[in-house]
Amino acid sequence: MSGLLTDLYELTMAAGYFEAGIASRTATFELSVRSLPKQRNFVLAAGLAQAVEYLQGLRFSREEIAYLRGLPQFARVSSRFFDMLGDFRFTGDVFAVPEGTPLFAGEPMMTIRAPLIEAQVPETYLLSALTFQTLIASKAARVVHAGGGRDIVEFGTRRAHTPEAGVLGARAAFIGGCVGTSNALAGYRYGIPVFGTAAHSWVMAFPNESESFRQLQKLLGAHTVQLIDTFDTIEGARKAAALGRPLWGVRLDSGDLASLAKQVRAILDQAGLRDARIMATSDLDEFKIHDILAAGAPVDVFGVGTELATSGDAPAMGAVYKLVEMDMGGIKRYTAKRSQGKMSTPGAKQVFRLADHDVLARSGECCGGGAEALLRPVILAGELVEPLPTLVDARKRAAECLAKLPPALRSLEVVEPFRVEHSAELIALTEQTSRNMP
Amino acid sequence: MSGLLTDLYELTMAAGYFEAGIASRTATFELSVRSLPKQRNFVLAAGLAQAVEYLQGLRFSREEIAYLRGLPQFARVSSRFFDMLGDFRFTGDVFAVPEGTPLFAGEPMMTIRAPLIEAQVPETYLLSALTFQTLIASKAARVVHAGGGRDIVEFGTRRAHTPEAGVLGARAAFIGGCVGTSNALAGYRYGIPVFGTAAHSWVMAFPNESESFRQLQKLLGAHTVQLIDTFDTIEGARKAAALGRPLWGVRLDSGDLASLAKQVRAILDQAGLRDARIMATSDLDEFKIHDILAAGAPVDVFGVGTELATSGDAPAMGAVYKLVEMDMGGIKRYTAKRSQGKMSTPGAKQVFRLADHDVLARSGECCGGGAEALLRPVILAGELVEPLPTLVDARKRAAECLAKLPPALRSLEVVEPFRVEHSAELIALTEQTSRNMP
Repeated sequence: MSGLLTDLYELTMAAGYFEAGIASRTATFELSVRSLPKQRNFVLAAGLAQAVEYLQGLRFSREEIAYLRGLPQFARVSSRFFDMLGDFRFTGDVFAVPEGTPLFAGEPMMTIRAPLIEAQVPETYLLSALTFQTLIASKAARVVHAGGGRDIVEFGTRRAHTPEAGVLGARAAFIGGCVGTSNALAGYRYGIPVFGTAAHSWVMAFPNESESFRQLQKLLGAHTVQLIDTFDTIEGARKAAALGRPLWGVRLDSGDLASLAKQVRAILDQAGLRDARIMATSDLDEFKIHDILAAGAPVDVFGVGTELATSGDAPAMGAVYKLVEMDMGGIKRYTAKRSQGKMSTPGAKQVFRLADHDVLARSGECCGGGAEALLRPVILAGELVEPLPTLVDARKRAAECLAKLPPALRSLEVVEPFRVEHSAELIALTEQTSRNMP
Repeated sequence: MSGLLTDLYELTMAAGYFEAGIASRTATFELSVRSLPKQRNFVLAAGLAQAVEYLQGLRFSREEIAYLRGLPQFARVSSRFFDMLGDFRFTGDVFAVPEGTPLFAGEPMMTIRAPLIEAQVPETYLLSALTFQTLIASKAARVVHAGGGRDIVEFGTRRAHTPEAGVLGARAAFIGGCVGTSNALAGYRYGIPVFGTAAHSWVMAFPNESESFRQLQKLLGAHTVQLIDTFDTIEGARKAAALGRPLWGVRLDSGDLASLAKQVRAILDQAGLRDARIMATSDLDEFKIHDILAAGAPVDVFGVGTELATSGDAPAMGAVYKLVEMDMGGIKRYTAKRSQGKMSTPGAKQVFRLADHDVLARSGECCGGGAEALLRPVILAGELVEPLPTLVDARKRAAECLAKLPPALRSLEVVEPFRVEHSAELIALTEQTSRNMP
């Protein structure tokens, strides 16, 4: 994990802290959800495994250090700083909500307590790694909800922002409730179930459509999914039906999916293929899936690509990484900024979840019985506290947590926000910090 | 480059072609822009260097092959296929438009002519790698245009869809005209100029704002950019001005940027700091930059993050990878699909660019004098024809090509599309192919 995979200013600030003699003072940073993305009633935290991997593997190679040394911004920095970078390791503490946890505006996803320099450098990487997977998992939860129990497969790598983002997007979509992915590397690396059909090129590579269907059947047996829209969906369905079993099902990829699904279902049923499934794809999102099902279309499985892999309607979220506590030479100071429209809240925090609201409290506070404390120790003094939950556990947690939330929050429309109260102690700290500001 | 970083169906189709005995037949695939992304009058091709790197490094490891062998979808596939995968190399030809070339709806960005199996497997990776950078370069060109000659710095890694996408996004943004990036690894790896200021945490890590400004000045000298909005922008500007030189400038990151820029300019000028620049950041895009400048705000440099790194208003584009020619055992067949709303055009093609329109022609056709043929050989028989243009050359090409287009196309609003004519030969081939469809 290259230490350079961050914004330059993290590194110039690191040098400045070092030169000012405050690099090893303990600082607490908070990575939190400033606001929910558009059209979202919650986000589902994801990406913690990659964040941990990064923090534990973060290093600066000799060549990378030489590069920094040559930059004009580092001209005044002493050699001792660059020597230190060669030994740079993350030795701090990390508290985070488990993957699959729903979060709301203003809530922290991760708290980092470490020597100032070690907490500053990872800012950029952590923001990107955590918010990307969080966006995709959150979108997946909506799409899965729209599917009303039907399987949703993530098909979006070709639209992901780099192929590697496709692998991690598949991981996040699985946490959000998808049954699997088309991405073979995601299957290999994370054990996510992999699915696939065939492309139009398959159909066109053989002398005719029927021959391509026959060849697919021979290859895949009971896993055969015939893509029937290359020339004419209804004709394609007839040809697939004529070949009979083995057949998992057919895929529709263009046209009026709801209407075509009904016609194709009739063709399959008339051929005695009542167990053959219909899969639909073609620029789907949660709203289109809702409409297709509302029209009574007999679609059994949806493959969702672009919208899922890019969180198309909300491709970014306003997460921030803010200094909340700082050791000022033996005196602990609570910090916040009051920039217009971007105020932050001081102090390390805990989120307590109750049935119908959350309490954002100061870290160390207690909350009444039945409340779940969401932030848990993940890394202490640079070492993993215990193995992270498996991906299957994260997916299960997401489903269980979502089921416990007020049902309206799972709506596709934006509803009244889930209430997040600040504890009396946090309010007092915020007011006190504000009074002490210049 | 893992061969598994693709959709599973590319690999099952590969197995199917192999089993059907047609894996080594020559096929031509075309990666083209089906439609322009929302709010775009053109796209700027980018990502070719990464596509080439992938094609030349594409391999299947023993462990990856063992994984595939264990999947139920491969249960009927012979051992010979898996043996072949161990030796899999891309040995085909690639024709592509150079990075930095503007393209329009319906135009190919890349043509792959290779044994069917070798051309099929890379589909997913190529689509993702090429469209992602193309989206970012295209967005950058708009932002740069809105800046009207002022420098635009790409600041978006923290919002990129994975940190690594931030590095490649920085590369694409540079092609699109940004002067540099905040991403240190992009500087190290691609030689892109790197820029940075300081974060709010820097200001808060010192006993007071003035002290943090003094420390930054000591660290960065003439590169100092003071972030002045942590508590109050006007007060911050006064404190920065009081410290005088050395000072590159100040950064505004919240509030009414146009109004604040005017007030801050006056403060700097009154302090005799007429050469100190004002940089603005805070969720900017091309429209906000346009408005800020239209209001006469004295902003010298814009830092653009989220919207640039995610192409926020159009985070995906409809690029497709379609089989256009196929050797059917000695007979060449031209192929197309006619799926509703997603028709494709048969045959390998060339794009000729003229002053006020393009001609999409069959590959091998000639076009009148003055026309530039956009698709050029990049890889022949698996080998790079010549070194790819440098990143600086790609950036220069983008600027030159954009300057030659009708000025209206550079507008931020959607205008009348640039005309793309089909040659008589291409029209004839399309009609003939359509007649031969089932």
